[in-house]
Amino acid sequence: MTEPKSYKWFLDHLSPFEGHMHGIDTIVFSKQTQFQQVEILDTKSYGRCLVLDGKMQSSEVDEFIYHEALVHPAMLTHPHPEKVFIVGGGEGATLREILRHKTVTRVLMVDIDQEVVESCKTHLPQMHQGAFDDSRAEVRYLDARKYLEETNETYDIIIIDISEPVEEGPAYLLYTREFYQLVMERLGRDGIISLQAGTTSASNLLNFSAIYQTLKAVFPVVSPYQASVPSFGLPWGFALASKHVDPRTLDTQEIDQRIARRIQGELRFYDGETHLGQFNLPKQIRLQMQKQERIIEDNYPLFTYH
Amino acid sequence: MTEPKSYKWFLDHLSPFEGHMHGIDTIVFSKQTQFQQVEILDTKSYGRCLVLDGKMQSSEVDEFIYHEALVHPAMLTHPHPEKVFIVGGGEGATLREILRHKTVTRVLMVDIDQEVVESCKTHLPQMHQGAFDDSRAEVRYLDARKYLEETNETYDIIIIDISEPVEEGPAYLLYTREFYQLVMERLGRDGIISLQAGTTSASNLLNFSAIYQTLKAVFPVVSPYQASVPSFGLPWGFALASKHVDPRTLDTQEIDQRIARRIQGELRFYDGETHLGQFNLPKQIRLQMQKQERIIEDNYPLFTYH
Amino acid sequence: MTEPKSYKWFLDHLSPFEGHMHGIDTIVFSKQTQFQQVEILDTKSYGRCLVLDGKMQSSEVDEFIYHEALVHPAMLTHPHPEKVFIVGGGEGATLREILRHKTVTRVLMVDIDQEVVESCKTHLPQMHQGAFDDSRAEVRYLDARKYLEETNETYDIIIIDISEPVEEGPAYLLYTREFYQLVMERLGRDGIISLQAGTTSASNLLNFSAIYQTLKAVFPVVSPYQASVPSFGLPWGFALASKHVDPRTLDTQEIDQRIARRIQGELRFYDGETHLGQFNLPKQIRLQMQKQERIIEDNYPLFTYH
Amino acid sequence: MTEPKSYKWFLDHLSPFEGHMHGIDTIVFSKQTQFQQVEILDTKSYGRCLVLDGKMQSSEVDEFIYHEALVHPAMLTHPHPEKVFIVGGGEGATLREILRHKTVTRVLMVDIDQEVVESCKTHLPQMHQGAFDDSRAEVRYLDARKYLEETNETYDIIIIDISEPVEEGPAYLLYTREFYQLVMERLGRDGIISLQAGTTSASNLLNFSAIYQTLKAVFPVVSPYQASVPSFGLPWGFALASKHVDPRTLDTQEIDQRIARRIQGELRFYDGETHLGQFNLPKQIRLQMQKQERIIEDNYPLFTYH
Repeated sequence: MTEPKSYKWFLDHLSPFEGHMHGIDTIVFSKQTQFQQVEILDTKSYGRCLVLDGKMQSSEVDEFIYHEALVHPAMLTHPHPEKVFIVGGGEGATLREILRHKTVTRVLMVDIDQEVVESCKTHLPQMHQGAFDDSRAEVRYLDARKYLEETNETYDIIIIDISEPVEEGPAYLLYTREFYQLVMERLGRDGIISLQAGTTSASNLLNFSAIYQTLKAVFPVVSPYQASVPSFGLPWGFALASKHVDPRTLDTQEIDQRIARRIQGELRFYDGETHLGQFNLPKQIRLQMQKQERIIEDNYPLFTYH
Repeated sequence: MTEPKSYKWFLDHLSPFEGHMHGIDTIVFSKQTQFQQVEILDTKSYGRCLVLDGKMQSSEVDEFIYHEALVHPAMLTHPHPEKVFIVGGGEGATLREILRHKTVTRVLMVDIDQEVVESCKTHLPQMHQGAFDDSRAEVRYLDARKYLEETNETYDIIIIDISEPVEEGPAYLLYTREFYQLVMERLGRDGIISLQAGTTSASNLLNFSAIYQTLKAVFPVVSPYQASVPSFGLPWGFALASKHVDPRTLDTQEIDQRIARRIQGELRFYDGETHLGQFNLPKQIRLQMQKQERIIEDNYPLFTYH
Repeated sequence: MTEPKSYKWFLDHLSPFEGHMHGIDTIVFSKQTQFQQVEILDTKSYGRCLVLDGKMQSSEVDEFIYHEALVHPAMLTHPHPEKVFIVGGGEGATLREILRHKTVTRVLMVDIDQEVVESCKTHLPQMHQGAFDDSRAEVRYLDARKYLEETNETYDIIIIDISEPVEEGPAYLLYTREFYQLVMERLGRDGIISLQAGTTSASNLLNFSAIYQTLKAVFPVVSPYQASVPSFGLPWGFALASKHVDPRTLDTQEIDQRIARRIQGELRFYDGETHLGQFNLPKQIRLQMQKQERIIEDNYPLFTYH
Repeated sequence: MTEPKSYKWFLDHLSPFEGHMHGIDTIVFSKQTQFQQVEILDTKSYGRCLVLDGKMQSSEVDEFIYHEALVHPAMLTHPHPEKVFIVGGGEGATLREILRHKTVTRVLMVDIDQEVVESCKTHLPQMHQGAFDDSRAEVRYLDARKYLEETNETYDIIIIDISEPVEEGPAYLLYTREFYQLVMERLGRDGIISLQAGTTSASNLLNFSAIYQTLKAVFPVVSPYQASVPSFGLPWGFALASKHVDPRTLDTQEIDQRIARRIQGELRFYDGETHLGQFNLPKQIRLQMQKQERIIEDNYPLFTYH
């Protein structure tokens, strides 16, 4: 072996029985905030990364996959998205991708943890790329659920970009039927939401399939999809839900045309062919989603890493 | 945390700077053969697994994804596959999937390491499921490359099911332009090959893209594709190459009809929708494949884990 | 690096922030009993090992250090030990060392976990070496504390050979002032006890020093000592406590003479010189022991790994 | 579990089959110098640490054990040490301990790696504590062996404070018979050397016992000893060698008196009782040392981690 091995490692505990190890060079930032443990690490294989409560959120090398997959299917399925709401959104890359859409006039990002956002602003400029300074963008540091309960405003698109539902983390009440109901009520006529929905690993489909069924209990149209974000250590699921529009009705050509017409700059991950790839899920995932009966509710929440 | 954590772990070194940890219950078998280190382990998340030279090959929980992805696209793209050759094939699950095709009259599997095959026969019956006893199947313990050089026989399908090209491992000369040329010469008129082609992780696409270009230097049609085999710890690539037929010309319905007509029993992973999903690769992978200029040759081989 | 690295590891969690990794070859036995997780593992560096609740108890390579250090100082300090009681004693090596003393007429070992003892009998014959078959030995599977509360018998020596006090483990009520009081009442006139007393690591002396002070609250003479059992991953502490005799009054020559006179066979670790080495503790350990004020009590127990 | 676990770890590879894991908070410094990989890490259990080529050298919490054990036995055994030479000495803590001796008039420290010393000066002030600024001290960045070959000066004490002999590291030619011969020739009439001599772990005594025999081939008096430096993950050996004086002839009282008379400030680890503890080695270590036949020579060197 000619190359040196790493002596310093970040251990991402995917479950009590499974982990992914990342060789690290630098611990750029590490702090226990009021809500969670925040870490910004320079890894050898994935560049600078954001880690919350010990779980990889975004890496310099492949965050474009996660954020393009999370944002553009919803945005492009909508006929003309102007007002967008982000639940969470920490490092500002979701905001960045939304702002690339020329139709957008206003984005409100509500993240509970100001320290996460501030530390990303400082240490992860490659992720936000100045998005926080865009005049169309506003960030508030509040409980997004409480904010949505108290506002009367509606949005074309609501993107839920939060960490996984862990027992003492800030996110688990943003995965329930009641929350999705609230979110739907804050959508405009052609409204769409999208969210990250946990791993699609064959050994642990509970979370992904229960989120699917919970969304189905609220929304007329639910379109689950999948993308490989290698730094996560496991394949990853997403879901898009809407009042009536369905991304699966758009063909490759239509996606490519909408990208050309509506988005500034070049996308790296998402295009018509990628769209086709990610919405056509493997058979066993589709079957398990259909068979799932669990609905996640405020008084019957679901926790990962259990 | 109510569930116990694991104290015993298998560490899969994906690179000098990245690893995947599997909690284990039992070390069923462990031996240094003439060719490689063989281990059969009971893991907590993926059931019983075959590990060669410290790298996960097949897990009870998700090997169906790997083996269906490896075998059925090639088999179903061919108009009428009768004679099939397997390069490698260790645990017998590739053989198992091939034998499900009613058109098949003969399968020859040539694996260099008899001890791997024998230990899988004994300890991994859930993988071969009796395939070795099928009268259409034959197994020989030889260097597959040497065998193909010396035979005059031709095959409808050749499946290359081998471990990754590591420096002291038995496989690296089965990834070169010269070997692919030899393989093509042993194909019948409508002949097709398929192979596993390494990770498609954004941080390490060299192997996948170089295999793609090397195949392109030999075969008229090359169709790369991708599947998530979670136990591998990274997204995984495959490639199908042929003299003229192209799997991407088959639509969802045609795939489903061929499955119904030609395959015994129910597939778990692969169907028309899965086919569409896996052959439509994300944009950045397609771009990197096109840009790659490396051709793998006998005297300029490629090693992973470097 | 010419030698292969291990892919299979036992991780001994010494604290939430420190661990010791052992490459393993075989998982000989693994079971959750009524009381604890038992594992018997073949490690690459320390041979066959007993692990309870994820913590190394005894290794084939260095258990002689632990067991000779635990047993012989107490036995040899006593003028003529005949009746011995073992609290715990799992793998039978403490029993083995006691039975080497020609003066001994009866040893009663009371271990709560029959499954641990039985699995060691089967899989660790190199540890008990037939001790369980000695006519002077008896084993009962009971709560040792309860047994001592209900018996009227007294013993010359009581050896406390138990795992560390972890929150849900079987041992923590065998480390309290009340238990030591009970133990003293079951000693004969020249009675002595000895016990393992946790790590003496500079970063975590709470356990060792609190045990020392708790013993001092009960016994007139308390002699702490130390031995390096490398497989434990940290230096290890012991304590001897008695009604009046003190091991530190015995010189090198006297120890060697008593060994020659009283013990069958050759000792590997313990002799006069070793005795001198282990009872002369480093200055910082002595200071921290003196300064410690914590007394461990039934309703104020101490837990390690916290 | 109420306390958080660590997600970031330093893995100290003690051998290909054994490791010690330290939870880390900060990577203070990390650089590949001309000679070795240097890292300064803040660990959760041992404070700030110096790591060379992936192996723990000194930790804030227990370096006083290592450095007092390395320096004071030699210094106090000498009747009146004035001139001292340090081979290596990186972080300056050996220099610090030497300068506490009132008899000392000059210390020359020769370390090959200026970048190690400079980074310790900056980031580990708690280790050198200003020692580099003492007018009696001088540091030169040279190959110590070459320096000693070319000088005519002699020293009362020579302390060899270097990292372990790894194959590509800078230290292995400082462990040979030829080097010890050279060192002896640079000693004054009552001259003494001391050195760290690798682990005394039962599973790997080759290094320690071969160093002992190699010293014996050169020096009339060789006194091996042992100390527990918990952050090292294994028990640790040292050796003192001299032209005629022997530390084992000094009793507890004499050590304590010399400390009181000659050393400024309070020692934390070393005193008469500690002296007695560390020079009285366990029986199995003494036996293995005596049986060892390997002499380490320039053209037959010894490497650890093999």
